[in-house]
Amino acid sequence: MKKFINHVDTLLDESLRGFAKAHADLVEVSFSPRFVRRKEVAPGKVALISGGGAGHEPLHTGFVGRGMLDAACPGQVFTSPTPDQMLAAAEAVAGDQGVLFIVKNYAGDVMNFEMAAEMLDCPSRTVLVQDDIALPKEHEIGRRGVAGTTIVEKIVGAAAEEGRSLDDLKTLGDRVAENTASIGVALSGCHVPALGGPTFELPPDKIEFGVGIHGEHGREIAEFASATEIVKRMVEAINEELQPKRGDKVLLHVNGLGATTLMELYLVYELAHEFWHQEGVEIARSLVGNYTTALDMAGCSVTLTRLDDEMIRLWDAPVHTAALRWGYDHTGPNS
Amino acid sequence: MKKFINHVDTLLDESLRGFAKAHADLVEVSFSPRFVRRKEVAPGKVALISGGGAGHEPLHTGFVGRGMLDAACPGQVFTSPTPDQMLAAAEAVAGDQGVLFIVKNYAGDVMNFEMAAEMLDCPSRTVLVQDDIALPKEHEIGRRGVAGTTIVEKIVGAAAEEGRSLDDLKTLGDRVAENTASIGVALSGCHVPALGGPTFELPPDKIEFGVGIHGEHGREIAEFASATEIVKRMVEAINEELQPKRGDKVLLHVNGLGATTLMELYLVYELAHEFWHQEGVEIARSLVGNYTTALDMAGCSVTLTRLDDEMIRLWDAPVHTAALRWGYDHTGPNS
Repeated sequence: MKKFINHVDTLLDESLRGFAKAHADLVEVSFSPRFVRRKEVAPGKVALISGGGAGHEPLHTGFVGRGMLDAACPGQVFTSPTPDQMLAAAEAVAGDQGVLFIVKNYAGDVMNFEMAAEMLDCPSRTVLVQDDIALPKEHEIGRRGVAGTTIVEKIVGAAAEEGRSLDDLKTLGDRVAENTASIGVALSGCHVPALGGPTFELPPDKIEFGVGIHGEHGREIAEFASATEIVKRMVEAINEELQPKRGDKVLLHVNGLGATTLMELYLVYELAHEFWHQEGVEIARSLVGNYTTALDMAGCSVTLTRLDDEMIRLWDAPVHTAALRWGYDHTGPNS
Repeated sequence: MKKFINHVDTLLDESLRGFAKAHADLVEVSFSPRFVRRKEVAPGKVALISGGGAGHEPLHTGFVGRGMLDAACPGQVFTSPTPDQMLAAAEAVAGDQGVLFIVKNYAGDVMNFEMAAEMLDCPSRTVLVQDDIALPKEHEIGRRGVAGTTIVEKIVGAAAEEGRSLDDLKTLGDRVAENTASIGVALSGCHVPALGGPTFELPPDKIEFGVGIHGEHGREIAEFASATEIVKRMVEAINEELQPKRGDKVLLHVNGLGATTLMELYLVYELAHEFWHQEGVEIARSLVGNYTTALDMAGCSVTLTRLDDEMIRLWDAPVHTAALRWGYDHTGPNS
């Protein structure tokens, strides 16, 4: 396994040091404990904090900035951050209005964010993202949080920027999360630096349907097929879950898992768009690219969010982070 | 080789159709002949047109929009576009001020853009990008154009937006190109859909030093080593070429070739930044991410541009394209 790396133990910090320098206009990075914070936090707002294991970049560190997260706490690759990271991040960016944590539904993340919330001196609420429909709703460990997290963080981030209350943001975040569903497909496993090899191996004629962003087993190992057939299966699974009606407005997010080309992602977007267009569902907003990756996994996920007018307005609101940008004026690239 | 694809012959058009829909606020796509044009071209400006084989996305289609390209002509994967594409694109977006072509130095591209220029009814000039220092300057086929193309297109794009003349833009583009040098390293080959397999294979302990963005052989097949050692070799090669002096301002661009994680790219950026910082060179601007890819190749390139005050001002000027964005106000994501 070849990677640009010096040592497994120093990878995260060396990478964060580069991130801090490349985006010095937007963020500051603390290393002990580790968190990325927005350079200038708007006063009087609820602080939005997320985090999770590294290896999914740009999620979450790439979403710290104006109109989105106030801080993100990266754990080691595929490893939950610790409560002291969330606590330190909250102390750095939170004011009287409290903290909203946005947490992907994994046991370690949930436990550590809960511990941080208990130790915190200010009010806090948590939005749990569990958009991965690979597992049934009633599964004992619940559904995983995957690419839909970006949609939750963007929409809630815009509302926080408007000065909305903690309870308001919690309600909004839950609404976005409940209206969001994702499904992923892997064409290959990914290479975790600490393991030195692939998380799993797929024969040349197989795909992992419903894969998680750490290479978790999905619904089944299926036959490799044409893009049309694979995407049809993905969108039908999402459609069955969310059941958007004719005339409904939705956001369609096609996310690359790491090693899949933009050409393919736009092709997947085209096929998914065509499906919902035929169903009479309006693709009102779109996002295509690598936003929630699984290291160097070849594969992609499709995410759909049922939108209401408020969610559309908040999606369109200005954002300026390392990885997601629109609508701000007079913003240099990294001056 | 597994990819999200229906057929080699339909990949490009299916992908472009998705691109057109996902960015309907920014671009329009013509299919016969193929080009992507900016939706609203500012009147009275020189038209900036680029193009080249597909497989390097977001280059060039992702750079069509306000403050950058007016049109881009994609060929099939790793295949030059044809003169009729450039002609049709020019007819769609060019006015009295003429056309500036930005061309990467490959025999097919150069020839086809030259033919288009000859057939064109308005004045045109061409900026040739040949930033890849893997080959010596005096090499018979000249140096290849690689990731430095993004820098040329952004800076010249901003100047065109200001209404500068064709001759001005040609002079500026040449100045940026001459002050830009890149070197790439591959950890793996890439998979061309029409070939069905990797362009080349590297043993587990080898890297391709000086690789081109189509998998061209570079300076040598070298031993795999730590990131620090690999990056040291890359930056020393660039430093010897450009010879930035103490106090010089530069732009540092670390570009992913497709399958390399952002964690690694920021680590490479950190190491390169440290090198020039020690040399007393000021990293005044930065760009880190996947901008000039080689399909799903694992690897990255480092690009350095020596900046003057005008180039810095133009780099900072607003841009809003699918893949590069800063500084515009009231710009929705894709509404």
